[in-house]
Amino acid sequence: MKIKIVVVLVLIQVYWSCAEPPHPLDPLSPSELNLVRTIVTNSYPASNLTFHHVALDEPDKPQILSWLSSPHSRALPRRAFVVARFKKQSLEITVDLSTRSIISSRVYKGHGFPTLTFAEQGLVSKLPFSYEPFKDSIKKRGLNMSEVVCAAFTVGWYGEENTKRIVKVKCYYANAATANLYARPVEGVSMVADLDDMTILSFSDRFGIPVPKAEGTEYRASKLKPPFGPKLNGINVTQPHGPGFAIDGHSVSWANWKFHLGFDFRVGPIISLVSIYDMEKHKYREVLYRGFISEVYVPYEDPTEEWYYTTYFDCGEYGFGQSASSLEPLRDCPSNAHFLDAFYADANGKPVKITNAFCIFEKYAGDIMWRHTEIAIPNQVITEARADVSLVVRMVSTVGNYDYIVDWEFKPSGSIKFGVGLTGILGMKGGAYSNMDQIKGEIDIHGTLLSDNTIGVYHDHFFTYYLDLDIDGQRNSFVKTTLETRKVKDHKIPRKSYWTAVTETAKTEADARVKLGLEAAELAVVNPNKKTKQGNKIGYRLLPGSVAHPLLASDDYPQIRGAFSNYNVWVTPYNKSEKWASGRFVDRSRGDDTLAVWSRDREIEKKDIVLWYTMGLHHVPAQEDYPVMPTLSTGFELRPTNFFEANPVLKTIITILSVPDDDPVDEFEVGQEFADKEATVMAVKTYSIRRAVEYKILESDRLKYTVQCANFGQGCR
Amino acid sequence: MKIKIVVVLVLIQVYWSCAEPPHPLDPLSPSELNLVRTIVTNSYPASNLTFHHVALDEPDKPQILSWLSSPHSRALPRRAFVVARFKKQSLEITVDLSTRSIISSRVYKGHGFPTLTFAEQGLVSKLPFSYEPFKDSIKKRGLNMSEVVCAAFTVGWYGEENTKRIVKVKCYYANAATANLYARPVEGVSMVADLDDMTILSFSDRFGIPVPKAEGTEYRASKLKPPFGPKLNGINVTQPHGPGFAIDGHSVSWANWKFHLGFDFRVGPIISLVSIYDMEKHKYREVLYRGFISEVYVPYEDPTEEWYYTTYFDCGEYGFGQSASSLEPLRDCPSNAHFLDAFYADANGKPVKITNAFCIFEKYAGDIMWRHTEIAIPNQVITEARADVSLVVRMVSTVGNYDYIVDWEFKPSGSIKFGVGLTGILGMKGGAYSNMDQIKGEIDIHGTLLSDNTIGVYHDHFFTYYLDLDIDGQRNSFVKTTLETRKVKDHKIPRKSYWTAVTETAKTEADARVKLGLEAAELAVVNPNKKTKQGNKIGYRLLPGSVAHPLLASDDYPQIRGAFSNYNVWVTPYNKSEKWASGRFVDRSRGDDTLAVWSRDREIEKKDIVLWYTMGLHHVPAQEDYPVMPTLSTGFELRPTNFFEANPVLKTIITILSVPDDDPVDEFEVGQEFADKEATVMAVKTYSIRRAVEYKILESDRLKYTVQCANFGQGCR
Repeated sequence: MKIKIVVVLVLIQVYWSCAEPPHPLDPLSPSELNLVRTIVTNSYPASNLTFHHVALDEPDKPQILSWLSSPHSRALPRRAFVVARFKKQSLEITVDLSTRSIISSRVYKGHGFPTLTFAEQGLVSKLPFSYEPFKDSIKKRGLNMSEVVCAAFTVGWYGEENTKRIVKVKCYYANAATANLYARPVEGVSMVADLDDMTILSFSDRFGIPVPKAEGTEYRASKLKPPFGPKLNGINVTQPHGPGFAIDGHSVSWANWKFHLGFDFRVGPIISLVSIYDMEKHKYREVLYRGFISEVYVPYEDPTEEWYYTTYFDCGEYGFGQSASSLEPLRDCPSNAHFLDAFYADANGKPVKITNAFCIFEKYAGDIMWRHTEIAIPNQVITEARADVSLVVRMVSTVGNYDYIVDWEFKPSGSIKFGVGLTGILGMKGGAYSNMDQIKGEIDIHGTLLSDNTIGVYHDHFFTYYLDLDIDGQRNSFVKTTLETRKVKDHKIPRKSYWTAVTETAKTEADARVKLGLEAAELAVVNPNKKTKQGNKIGYRLLPGSVAHPLLASDDYPQIRGAFSNYNVWVTPYNKSEKWASGRFVDRSRGDDTLAVWSRDREIEKKDIVLWYTMGLHHVPAQEDYPVMPTLSTGFELRPTNFFEANPVLKTIITILSVPDDDPVDEFEVGQEFADKEATVMAVKTYSIRRAVEYKILESDRLKYTVQCANFGQGCR
Repeated sequence: MKIKIVVVLVLIQVYWSCAEPPHPLDPLSPSELNLVRTIVTNSYPASNLTFHHVALDEPDKPQILSWLSSPHSRALPRRAFVVARFKKQSLEITVDLSTRSIISSRVYKGHGFPTLTFAEQGLVSKLPFSYEPFKDSIKKRGLNMSEVVCAAFTVGWYGEENTKRIVKVKCYYANAATANLYARPVEGVSMVADLDDMTILSFSDRFGIPVPKAEGTEYRASKLKPPFGPKLNGINVTQPHGPGFAIDGHSVSWANWKFHLGFDFRVGPIISLVSIYDMEKHKYREVLYRGFISEVYVPYEDPTEEWYYTTYFDCGEYGFGQSASSLEPLRDCPSNAHFLDAFYADANGKPVKITNAFCIFEKYAGDIMWRHTEIAIPNQVITEARADVSLVVRMVSTVGNYDYIVDWEFKPSGSIKFGVGLTGILGMKGGAYSNMDQIKGEIDIHGTLLSDNTIGVYHDHFFTYYLDLDIDGQRNSFVKTTLETRKVKDHKIPRKSYWTAVTETAKTEADARVKLGLEAAELAVVNPNKKTKQGNKIGYRLLPGSVAHPLLASDDYPQIRGAFSNYNVWVTPYNKSEKWASGRFVDRSRGDDTLAVWSRDREIEKKDIVLWYTMGLHHVPAQEDYPVMPTLSTGFELRPTNFFEANPVLKTIITILSVPDDDPVDEFEVGQEFADKEATVMAVKTYSIRRAVEYKILESDRLKYTVQCANFGQGCR
């Protein structure tokens, strides 16, 4: 799937796929995936078997931490975790790769089914084409069967006693006129199909609504007609000295950061072993043992027959990693980005390469890392400013119509920013209307009228992040600092009130559930056993992003399954098996294996704890979101808070200095013309002659940096 | 003040200061400021006069709008508004520049005083040096008088019957060891001084606390010692075809946007006449008549004798524009930035140039404007992605210790993003403590212990934006769309609940006051008289940023003065005189002239309305904020919502295509080697030979763009 452009940095590629021995958190390589397949199919004949999730079964945390202290002393066992369907049963299999054996295998008897594979989605989407009632419906509508495209949609659970692996199959119209099938639903017709039997179980054709017109729905540049615009002038990011990061296998280091970048079929990027170098303590310090998006819960808000069941769990049902799109150089990522491929096992257990699944790049948005201008000291004006550069790891997951841009951004100041961009195509339904004037009285179209016969259905997005923070070690606590208003008691003071910070440490999980927005509070994970010189608890603070609370009734079926969104913040004691907020088997799940169920009143003080943070947004579509959505960006931040003794970028080395090269004429060493006699190195080497003349006025300023560079004693390019 | 580096683009500079006739919203030029001074001092002898705010008195809105329709037919009158002190009275003077006459002059009799000038702040800060009791206190502490620096602080109002123009004078220690005076307060000593008489009225030396040590407080690179780091590799933004924006005087146009950039002594950047080109309607459409930061309200939360009065109104008391810092090329703004100067009148009425007060640049952070990958259509993988470029206008205002980075970001998609970055130096007080262990029981230090004897005091920042939105015309309404949970009534549907959007239009100001966070709602300004083809109301939506509510008692004096922060959103009918949320005379104001007072129950439906939005944050300092703060960024967005018929960047022209130029060897036309026979133009012209070979694999992809370019029929370099 989606194999298009292969722009690989060969060296990185070699490391990525062939490094030996693997880091214990490396995702399974193609050869390992093949080996897993061989081992499993030895016991379960391939003819009756489908693979639904093949993942690294990573060693236990103590083993990993111990390995990290002497990584080359021994290799840890490589194991795989497999979820498969075999003869209509769900299997959970653990495979040992070194012994080439199945360690354990059990039939899953609980509620819910595994993630859907692309293969079965593809097969089930073909069923309507040989199903006579459907063909009749298409004919009746005057449509051309060869221009129909169908897709499978999970159906959730609405209280049924018994559940099977069924999906709804809905169809769209796509032809030479437009690739935007979601904008052209064949509304009123739907089918229920059995994924195990690959048969259509039921069919309904309740009503006919014109398929919305193709005009205005296309988004491919090659198919669009003038006028084009707005026109943006070219812009480019360059790094004269190359990238500042290094990639060794799946381990990435940059500036003061290092971390491991994994990939999983279900959740996409898994960032582990994040630590930051402390220049004062002369060592790397742990921040995050592991983080990933555990679930993306997307309930739609149309309660009518054709739409009421529409609630997606993009990780558990569809595979957020399986759905990773190949990133397009120069458009999905800037020109200084490097790309990495990822691999997953398809329904047959065979490795599939997602080319350019990740890009990694240094981001320079023109922002300021810190600055100050001082004019209070007589006869001086001091200005110090540092440009802000960060490192971004990006993946895009396209789950059907929606494209989610997932960024992990590491800042030299110690912050980690988690960006999510929402783009792609809205979930749309057909409607009889072309103008809001036609919608009178009590009629609710459950969305926004975007175009003739086209309604963008109301929905929510809840992104639940799993963040196993290990702040300078494993034993951590969750602390809430509430800002409380106080009355001034000193009668000599004419002021009446002020606020102060009151800190409480959560003892149990129950204490740590937070609905954001109800009070002024700061939330942090701290290491209560470690303090700064000043005696403050070493910690990282959560700066929340877009806050949304579920609006469904809490006893409604989708919300029972998505109950992990009932709080924005949960904290649990670390438990290796508690990874997926929505549970292990999410398709048709009943909410009996979610974060909201596991989280009771376990103790979490001075424990290895996991922070679960749900960022959400309600989406009332707008016409601007049609036919393809301008990215809506949101995000949150983990920010060091008394983690360092002081600003960790106070003494950052500036090499941002450069000038526009819009007129490159010649190059010369700045030092030749301007440098102080004592200076032998310069922060920036290349200026064009013409620019240099214009910038002569910067001379005194440049000298300052020259001297600074000389002080480094180590060069400072 | 602050005149350092003069890097000017000569052409722009000429336009900026000499264009004739001025646009009616252009700020007063240096010659106009001089003329104002001449006219005013003809009536009020300069010896008794100080200028506290000289600003353009812009023509009435109907005049401006009429002028815009035929800008060259006639020049509008140029008038200046002057706030001055003359013989201990505050004057409000209106001057006509063409007739060189005072049109009106009145003595202000209300509460409060004008903005402090730099000159009087400088003078009053010198008083302690000849004040014996202070000299004794310094001696007693064993400090060196020549290393003391003092500064003036506004004192607010705490119920006094009579008020004079007094300030507190507090002092710091700054010497060769460190420029960071705020980190070294001479705590316990304070003075009250009269600004009109320039005398010290009272003095107190309540207690002695060691001046915090210099070590660890310096932030100048040239004074810091190794080790340096973290090291960041060089990175640069280049624009092979130059910038995409054009500046004509103070008018800026870029991509589909145009606007006017003004400057004011009190509020800094004023962005006016913002409109966006609608390719479908073939015209520019109005979005924002005028926007600026009306006030920055910063209450500190220490109720003790030396700190309780510490509440700043950075615009009204200190002049957010007067406090603009000269931006440093390559650090405050990227290499592709262009800089503009600004001018204000000093206490003598003489023009002062702020070099590089603004920078304007195209921002490319590596983000994605929109994208989609489509795999549902058999035998095709479609990926379309567009890189995101925006235009940023930046100013930094340094009000004493704090540096505020103010960004206006215009996106081709129609969004305006308002960024605020907080950096600079914390407000710190001396304390007896060096470790939190020493702070027992009921003791509240009202801040965070940052270093030995150094406490970063708790405080808030409230940024109140004035946004005179004119959505496609003046007659607008404010609309709140609440997302309400509904029960499913159809018993055939097993789902229990859903939400729907309920829209209410505010009739009066009272209906439009919003405290954010209390409910799920979308806020928009719409033009109820204009609808899309689909019948949706044309509008712009407010996507709030960091939400904070005041924590002070509402009857407390600072909060009475800052009552405009009581709601995050207010909407008022347009009134030319209602500009400043904190009132006209803010120093020692009593809250009787604020937004909270003007806003009663005036009608706002289908009126020319102004949206006031307050973004806030509570700041519990962290050790990382010391000795200088890593920027904390926040912001909000105005986003078109049914303003356009469809995605306005669907057909944007991509010229982002480029490759890293880390190895420039040679240039050639890509078309020479790769282009389709039919194509004669390419999106990007220059590739290095070596890179081009590596990127050959992109050929098919590039051809797609080649064809696209050919279709433009107008070239698409």
